[in-house]
Amino acid sequence: MTELQTGLLRPRDLTTPLRIAESAFVADGSVLGLSDFYDWFRTRTELDVARVTRIPFDRLRQWSFHPDTGDVVHDSGRFFAVQGLEVRFPGGPVPVWAQPIINQPEMGILGILVKEFNGVLHCLMQAKNEPGNRNGVQLSPTVQATKSNYSRVHQGKAVPYLEYFRDTSGHHVIADVLQSEQGAWFFQKRNRNMVVETRDDVEVLDGFCWLTIGQMHRLLADEDLINMDSRTVMSCLPFSAADLPGAFSRDEDDFQTAVLRSCSEEYGSLHATGDILSWITEARTLHGVETSRIPLDEVRDWTRTDDAVSHRSGLFFDVIAVDVEVGHREVSAWTQPMIDPGGLGVVAFLVKRIGGVLHVLTHARVEPGYLDVVELAPTVQCSPRNLPALPAEARPLFLDEVLSAGPDRIRFDAVLSEEGGRFYHAQNRYLVVEVDDDFGLDVPPDFRWVALHQLVGLLRHSHYLNVQARSLVACLHSLTSSPA
Amino acid sequence: MTELQTGLLRPRDLTTPLRIAESAFVADGSVLGLSDFYDWFRTRTELDVARVTRIPFDRLRQWSFHPDTGDVVHDSGRFFAVQGLEVRFPGGPVPVWAQPIINQPEMGILGILVKEFNGVLHCLMQAKNEPGNRNGVQLSPTVQATKSNYSRVHQGKAVPYLEYFRDTSGHHVIADVLQSEQGAWFFQKRNRNMVVETRDDVEVLDGFCWLTIGQMHRLLADEDLINMDSRTVMSCLPFSAADLPGAFSRDEDDFQTAVLRSCSEEYGSLHATGDILSWITEARTLHGVETSRIPLDEVRDWTRTDDAVSHRSGLFFDVIAVDVEVGHREVSAWTQPMIDPGGLGVVAFLVKRIGGVLHVLTHARVEPGYLDVVELAPTVQCSPRNLPALPAEARPLFLDEVLSAGPDRIRFDAVLSEEGGRFYHAQNRYLVVEVDDDFGLDVPPDFRWVALHQLVGLLRHSHYLNVQARSLVACLHSLTSSPA
Repeated sequence: MTELQTGLLRPRDLTTPLRIAESAFVADGSVLGLSDFYDWFRTRTELDVARVTRIPFDRLRQWSFHPDTGDVVHDSGRFFAVQGLEVRFPGGPVPVWAQPIINQPEMGILGILVKEFNGVLHCLMQAKNEPGNRNGVQLSPTVQATKSNYSRVHQGKAVPYLEYFRDTSGHHVIADVLQSEQGAWFFQKRNRNMVVETRDDVEVLDGFCWLTIGQMHRLLADEDLINMDSRTVMSCLPFSAADLPGAFSRDEDDFQTAVLRSCSEEYGSLHATGDILSWITEARTLHGVETSRIPLDEVRDWTRTDDAVSHRSGLFFDVIAVDVEVGHREVSAWTQPMIDPGGLGVVAFLVKRIGGVLHVLTHARVEPGYLDVVELAPTVQCSPRNLPALPAEARPLFLDEVLSAGPDRIRFDAVLSEEGGRFYHAQNRYLVVEVDDDFGLDVPPDFRWVALHQLVGLLRHSHYLNVQARSLVACLHSLTSSPA
Repeated sequence: MTELQTGLLRPRDLTTPLRIAESAFVADGSVLGLSDFYDWFRTRTELDVARVTRIPFDRLRQWSFHPDTGDVVHDSGRFFAVQGLEVRFPGGPVPVWAQPIINQPEMGILGILVKEFNGVLHCLMQAKNEPGNRNGVQLSPTVQATKSNYSRVHQGKAVPYLEYFRDTSGHHVIADVLQSEQGAWFFQKRNRNMVVETRDDVEVLDGFCWLTIGQMHRLLADEDLINMDSRTVMSCLPFSAADLPGAFSRDEDDFQTAVLRSCSEEYGSLHATGDILSWITEARTLHGVETSRIPLDEVRDWTRTDDAVSHRSGLFFDVIAVDVEVGHREVSAWTQPMIDPGGLGVVAFLVKRIGGVLHVLTHARVEPGYLDVVELAPTVQCSPRNLPALPAEARPLFLDEVLSAGPDRIRFDAVLSEEGGRFYHAQNRYLVVEVDDDFGLDVPPDFRWVALHQLVGLLRHSHYLNVQARSLVACLHSLTSSPA
């Protein structure tokens, strides 16, 4: 008998991705049915009301323009600041520009607690109102806390369930990875995306509920319901349906089967994963982006009025101030600066069945706030209202394919919100559009067809998929749960 | 017949790691025998002679101290600069310090070209003299070129074989990843580590030769022979001996078998890879390191004399200047600043057979020059002569275990050089030491026992293993080739 039989060694975990896929196929929960969920959620919406008002900057409390720089800063020096950024991107459509940017060096925790009920994984989700949400309450992760938040700078209440994420010993960590947020608005911001499974008895507090992944997939199709933080954590779930009994019993040429195949590496992919990694390395080497932080006062082409810092065109975004009064929040009233993008964005993946396996057209995209130059982005990610102000080269290459797609080619289409703690009424229309058969495999150098399991493999690591692409990965996974 | 049979899809590549292991078992090459190699290498050493002399700073040509900052800069503004860095590491053994650092924003290419001869992979290696090498010529990758280098700022000769790495189409990319270099001396420097396989006929130029991976493994044991750039590229080779006929025919309890098992994920590991990733994420979240670049003139405790910028203790390292005259270099004579670490360092992995599989004790280490806070480092990485100047907490935890190990527990022991283009006579003693059976599995929070295949999996991505750990991964792989 060799030492190999000592039982000290753990094999590769193949069962968790399967259990996640199983939960995705449970479209109505064993704990809470969908219609009961909607009743509960309506009640939460009525209870958890916030009054959010735009105010002029001089009504901000504890926030002010720094006298030397014009940066928007908190009296404590904590939370975040709005500063200036100068960007040099030689070879880009706009080679040099300056802009306001949010600097929030602290890393927060976005965590979903999961637990098996009747053998099916359920996620503990929270109905939560955020000041930037156009519609008030949305569904957020179990924990959504900045470090200031959980170290009590707010002097507010303790963050419930935080202990599962701050000390994971005794629990099963399914995902734990730092992921970037909007690289156009945040300077090198990242949050810790976590999924932790427990076997503990968990008390369900007011405002929380257990949902299967299949239920969350259904809810993703609802406008402004599953919030951005939930979507980014969901995207980090490993997911494989390869060995799932019954998963492939459908018509083997239908769309859903192609998505399921795309979730398992055994079906292969157009490009080897090593070639995808090499393409990303090449993009990072080629695109020499240089950024330097500058005082907000020195950001050219941007001006400050009583109630906004705006680009002279009136486009891109505004820095604004709001007054917030809520009941269920950590503190009951506060003011804060926010970013108002001013118009609906378009975020879309073109997808194609290649050899029966769904592939998505990803874009190696430069944004000034990324720590590592380039991240993979959706095929199209833009705010159409800004396009007239930009040079023609800045028009997204495949925008027309997305916007002109007939209903027979649209596989997913929902308006979803971006993070409501920093962004005011920021919404994007998230689309998955299947291209015609004659759409080629040869694409411009900054684009590649990638299988879904390749994206999910990259999501174990930082610096690969931007937050918009992660939202769309969650939307793509939701298509595995669609009704037959 | 479904679309799946169309042949458009590529399966996961399982054969390349196997072919690499096969080449590792070929200890004497089919192209060049080891004794012929040594003859050839001796000739190269005699031909490729450099005269490197330390000079006072005022004899630097095209380099000078910037009048405003005291930074050491090149007249062109290119290549690199020596600047100041202020580091805040609350909770670290030294919470605040300032130091000189090399800022070299350009990413270079370190590339090994490989090709099969008689069914065995061979690497095209180059005998190359670098000014910082104590012994002149060492064995470097096929291509070792900064961007200034290959874009001809030097106005020197074209870099041979560069075309295989600048345009990989038609070749097989085995590895292509940006990896960090010394985070104590470089500010966020990274190089592109590439291994490209070709089927082309390749002309072997003067100064180049083909070696099997097994031969390179033998040469790694020689003092100052395989240079740092070769070692870091070698570490990025995927390597799996699981399916290799004959690999496991040895005594199943011997050390070499434990190393081979550690190269294949099928034998499992003490910690799941997800738990290793979570531990790294935790370390990055906990250690809030802040760095800011400052003028070299303002680095406190460091002073400039005619021929060195030094710490007042005389320890750590000096910034010096050298005059170089060589025959085979791109240009025949130049001067440049360098870093002189002044003493031999110790770089060591403690290793342990756990359930018959070798595990290495890795350290989640903060260095100021990392782009992403923490990278995995060897168990011990230090310069013993500096320790008396540091607080007791800064003494590496396992240094005594390493230095007191008897010869029966030392599995690898060689003095190897660091990069000779920037570092002057920088050498480390690289050690692999097997701990006693009673050395426990419970280790301090910043340490973890990790299987070799887990490290190699992380090496497909940036920001995980520091350059010293990568060197040791190459050394560990070399133990699979050791004579029976």
